[in-house]
Amino acid sequence: MIIIKIISIGKTKEVWLEQALGEYTKRLASKAKIEFVLVKDNSQLVQQIEKEKLCICLDPKGKTMSSEEFSDYLEKGGSRLCFVIGGPEGLPANLQGKYPTISLSRLTFTHQLSRLILLEQIYRAFEILKGTPYHKS
Amino acid sequence: MIIIKIISIGKTKEVWLEQALGEYTKRLASKAKIEFVLVKDNSQLVQQIEKEKLCICLDPKGKTMSSEEFSDYLEKGGSRLCFVIGGPEGLPANLQGKYPTISLSRLTFTHQLSRLILLEQIYRAFEILKGTPYHKS
Repeated sequence: MIIIKIISIGKTKEVWLEQALGEYTKRLASKAKIEFVLVKDNSQLVQQIEKEKLCICLDPKGKTMSSEEFSDYLEKGGSRLCFVIGGPEGLPANLQGKYPTISLSRLTFTHQLSRLILLEQIYRAFEILKGTPYHKS
Repeated sequence: MIIIKIISIGKTKEVWLEQALGEYTKRLASKAKIEFVLVKDNSQLVQQIEKEKLCICLDPKGKTMSSEEFSDYLEKGGSRLCFVIGGPEGLPANLQGKYPTISLSRLTFTHQLSRLILLEQIYRAFEILKGTPYHKS
């Protein structure tokens, strides 16, 4: 069982987002425990990150990858991973370059949508590793 | 008022997705009329596309762009646009190379999530063109 923490700034205001995140969290339950940490600002974000051994930051300027490459990346990440989604201004300056940084897209997404896209990619990654038809259907 | 048609294969099974698409469609209502066309298979997809003057296909191998570049692209697109999201196997072979093809990401998304991501980018594009703080908040 992998523990994956997803730290981001903001609140979940949208009911549909709660439902969507809940659906993928449930689908992942036998493989990964997903913990969402919502913080208020950059200073709380940095505090949270300092508690973690391995952090991966998400930023449009980070390394882009295919879903297959992301599944390899996740497989090699060990049993405890932490993803960090920056606020509206992107990652705080003191985090830039400090941690491996990946990009979901060159496009900018809301932090809310970024959480859903990341979670679907984590689910997809496990399905790719298991060899199920999910990734091709 | 721009008319934007989004053609994709599949059904909307998820309640949360209906709600999310509804929210952005409503937010866009004063600027763009969004029409979703859901088809069963590639042959129906091609039939639909043949009715359109200007089609833009979405494929992970297409041209990637930033949200600012996408808003420029949309602005130059005229008053009627049609986006096409391929099925699980990607775009049908006879469409590849025939139409301009853009990529939301190198990652593969479900067609369902692709529709939501595209719609949020269309909304973001209008907000960028209007110069509102949405894109930076």
